[in-house]
Amino acid sequence: MKAPREHARKVARSLDEAVERAGLRDGATISFHHHLRNGDGVLNAVLDACARAGLRGLRLAPSALFPVHEPLTRQIREGTVSAIETAFVSGPVGEAVMAGMLAEPLRLTTHGGRAAAIRDGALRIDAAFVAAPAADPLGNISGTLGPNACGTLGYAMVDARHAAHVVAVADQMLPYPCQSAAIGEEDVDTVCAVAAIGDAAGILSGTTHPATDPADLAIAENAIALFACSEHWRARFGFQTGAGAISLAAADALGRRMAAEKGAMGGFLSGGITGAHVRLLEAGLFEAILDVQCFDLEAVRSHARNRAHRAISASAYAAPGPRGAVVDQLDAVILGAAEVDLDFNVNVTLAADGRIIGGSGGHADTASGSALAIVTTRLTARGFPKIVRRVGCITTPGASIDAVVTEAGIAINPGRPDLYDRARAAGLTLLSIEELEAKSRGSATRALPPAKREGPVVAISQSRDGAILDTIHARR
Amino acid sequence: MKAPREHARKVARSLDEAVERAGLRDGATISFHHHLRNGDGVLNAVLDACARAGLRGLRLAPSALFPVHEPLTRQIREGTVSAIETAFVSGPVGEAVMAGMLAEPLRLTTHGGRAAAIRDGALRIDAAFVAAPAADPLGNISGTLGPNACGTLGYAMVDARHAAHVVAVADQMLPYPCQSAAIGEEDVDTVCAVAAIGDAAGILSGTTHPATDPADLAIAENAIALFACSEHWRARFGFQTGAGAISLAAADALGRRMAAEKGAMGGFLSGGITGAHVRLLEAGLFEAILDVQCFDLEAVRSHARNRAHRAISASAYAAPGPRGAVVDQLDAVILGAAEVDLDFNVNVTLAADGRIIGGSGGHADTASGSALAIVTTRLTARGFPKIVRRVGCITTPGASIDAVVTEAGIAINPGRPDLYDRARAAGLTLLSIEELEAKSRGSATRALPPAKREGPVVAISQSRDGAILDTIHARR
Repeated sequence: MKAPREHARKVARSLDEAVERAGLRDGATISFHHHLRNGDGVLNAVLDACARAGLRGLRLAPSALFPVHEPLTRQIREGTVSAIETAFVSGPVGEAVMAGMLAEPLRLTTHGGRAAAIRDGALRIDAAFVAAPAADPLGNISGTLGPNACGTLGYAMVDARHAAHVVAVADQMLPYPCQSAAIGEEDVDTVCAVAAIGDAAGILSGTTHPATDPADLAIAENAIALFACSEHWRARFGFQTGAGAISLAAADALGRRMAAEKGAMGGFLSGGITGAHVRLLEAGLFEAILDVQCFDLEAVRSHARNRAHRAISASAYAAPGPRGAVVDQLDAVILGAAEVDLDFNVNVTLAADGRIIGGSGGHADTASGSALAIVTTRLTARGFPKIVRRVGCITTPGASIDAVVTEAGIAINPGRPDLYDRARAAGLTLLSIEELEAKSRGSATRALPPAKREGPVVAISQSRDGAILDTIHARR
Repeated sequence: MKAPREHARKVARSLDEAVERAGLRDGATISFHHHLRNGDGVLNAVLDACARAGLRGLRLAPSALFPVHEPLTRQIREGTVSAIETAFVSGPVGEAVMAGMLAEPLRLTTHGGRAAAIRDGALRIDAAFVAAPAADPLGNISGTLGPNACGTLGYAMVDARHAAHVVAVADQMLPYPCQSAAIGEEDVDTVCAVAAIGDAAGILSGTTHPATDPADLAIAENAIALFACSEHWRARFGFQTGAGAISLAAADALGRRMAAEKGAMGGFLSGGITGAHVRLLEAGLFEAILDVQCFDLEAVRSHARNRAHRAISASAYAAPGPRGAVVDQLDAVILGAAEVDLDFNVNVTLAADGRIIGGSGGHADTASGSALAIVTTRLTARGFPKIVRRVGCITTPGASIDAVVTEAGIAINPGRPDLYDRARAAGLTLLSIEELEAKSRGSATRALPPAKREGPVVAISQSRDGAILDTIHARR
């Protein structure tokens, strides 16, 4: 016999009611996930509701921000939002930050660092708003169903587990109980149906297809050749790539090499997952995909149909700590770079012209966790040198990076003499990082503007464990 | 590049080392799950290790105890264990409790109450020892692989999420990453391989097959007839049965009625799951199974192969609170009883002769959460009356119970006049609870011994929300 109180419903009729139910006050911390990437419609809609509710000085903790979040610049200007902590920013919000509009410096974390901060209570979320591709009225959330299915919900899983109040914002309501719940009703307080959570086609934004340029392909091949000659090329290896063009080409190159080497069997692929990774799994070259985020619709479909393509939370993926994380089991990761410097520090946060173009995401997490971290990059981009004396912003410390692979050759971190010896024995073209820097400078057609290292700090680049790696200063 | 510290391993070479790594002190609280039921070998082995480590006054929080845990009586006697909090006790430990051997009264909780206490911090677990049918060296745990696969791990999921230290005790080690991880590496500190975690054949113990006795079958049919005439017989209903013989016969009777009523489509089955429930799912009569625990190997296999047979944590299953739980969505539950009294209170804790024979498990959770809670019982058992003036112990308050179905007829709780009217219109045989009590007394061949209501309290029966429902006193 059910007591009347237990008939209470979780369903809010509007985002305004959902914001009211969350009990937010001025200065509250609210979070969002970015699985819909530049297709996300939830963050803007919720902040509009927050503004209508008269909330001021909100602290925003989205896992990432994209150009689609341009309306957030208005919320910053008008004082609805005064602080942001996130692992990635691209688009107009970065411009607003560089212009000094945000009351507090932007905190640029890593995906793993963000998850650890939430887990450990350093980042307390008052309300998490979860863009839900499908949900039932009790708040079971699926990422694989609905018109805007985005696949796994790794970032949202951490927020939902720890936030004081959790709101599922869904555009596909399903009867109870929703099948394949990535987030369960025990973690959800409020459910709000909306016309659309965004546009799943936007998932593709920010990622690319594998490179086709011959120089890029050569870099990808050499990165895999370096891995293959290393001690880390072992049975059941764990492997990850970023989602840049060269990284994805490296995934393809890896598949070709593994197929050629009969019996070469991989263990797992992790990270943001694309069709390039799904093809490696389906070719039988790997046993499992551990997926914190689907980067394209091919990955979304694979996760929905294939049990070997498993979802993991951002905490399982990359949070530092004694329990370890998936990235700590990686044998090799192939990463991109905007700039690399003589200390092997990598910048994926600032463009040569000083714009904010991203941030770590999982870059620093995977570099520090993987036994072998290879950065692939061209010597120049848009005429600017990419191998430089000092990066404009340290996103990933050079101590985490084992090698830099360019079209001119490979520089091995002096901390890895074993890798240098193996690469030389394998006949790879090796140069010092200083030689690469000289070649990069020589190939450049544009000079780097002087780095701005003074004036008001508008952003802070944090390491995986929360330490300050670098500061970013307001542009004139 | 991986820092040397991150190569640290989670694997303990023995349970002694695992206990040492858990950092336990005298008086620590340690937990276990009972998915292997009377086949569990982990609790005894860990307590032996605790005793070898010289630990004293441990507080035990297993989700249930079975006859196989007889060695625990020695740990109680010798002072290794001084307090126990659990949802179910059968076997020698109950005898030891009744003899007053435990330093503090046994706390008999519900499955949902236990999960809520862990979630809310009222029950702080220093170390959870998880019997793991399969695990990898990083602590990803699967319940569906290995020689002692027990299926879902609903109780352990809550312990692992909240305990300060989590030890996976596994007899099947798998390469990283373990597929289909019910508990992920982010929740596990230590992994210990053992020769055997027990014997999965023991899962069957404590449950039964559907009844075959004609009187039992008639009770089962009438229970379903009562459900079918109620307002709760609606599209997509949620349904649960206990694992007693009559309850399982009711599941079969339900299947026959649904198959006959073309278009009658169930929503979900929940709870401890048996082959009887799997058959309802596979016949297309229900859309989903929400499984906190597999009660037989047929359920284990179904969960492994069928995505519609989904695992849920004990918290999702039954924890009280504003977020609700699966049991709060039930339309009907069919439960057993050792005794029912004139206030519809149910006892499944004490036998007529005063022995501890179990406890709530999910009895009180489902009764309070379900819109319709039907208790099925014979009038007598082993000559003792089962419908009594006052139950020997209140396990489930009568306010949660809507009806009692016996071979002599059905008593409807006076709080449900609507149900009474519908049952009468449906032609069901209705009696008052007082009439049932008189018939039960008349059929009995043995008189109940006088209930013992004084002397030292050896056990406390708690409601779903932690309130004290009843006390159990030491036997002479």
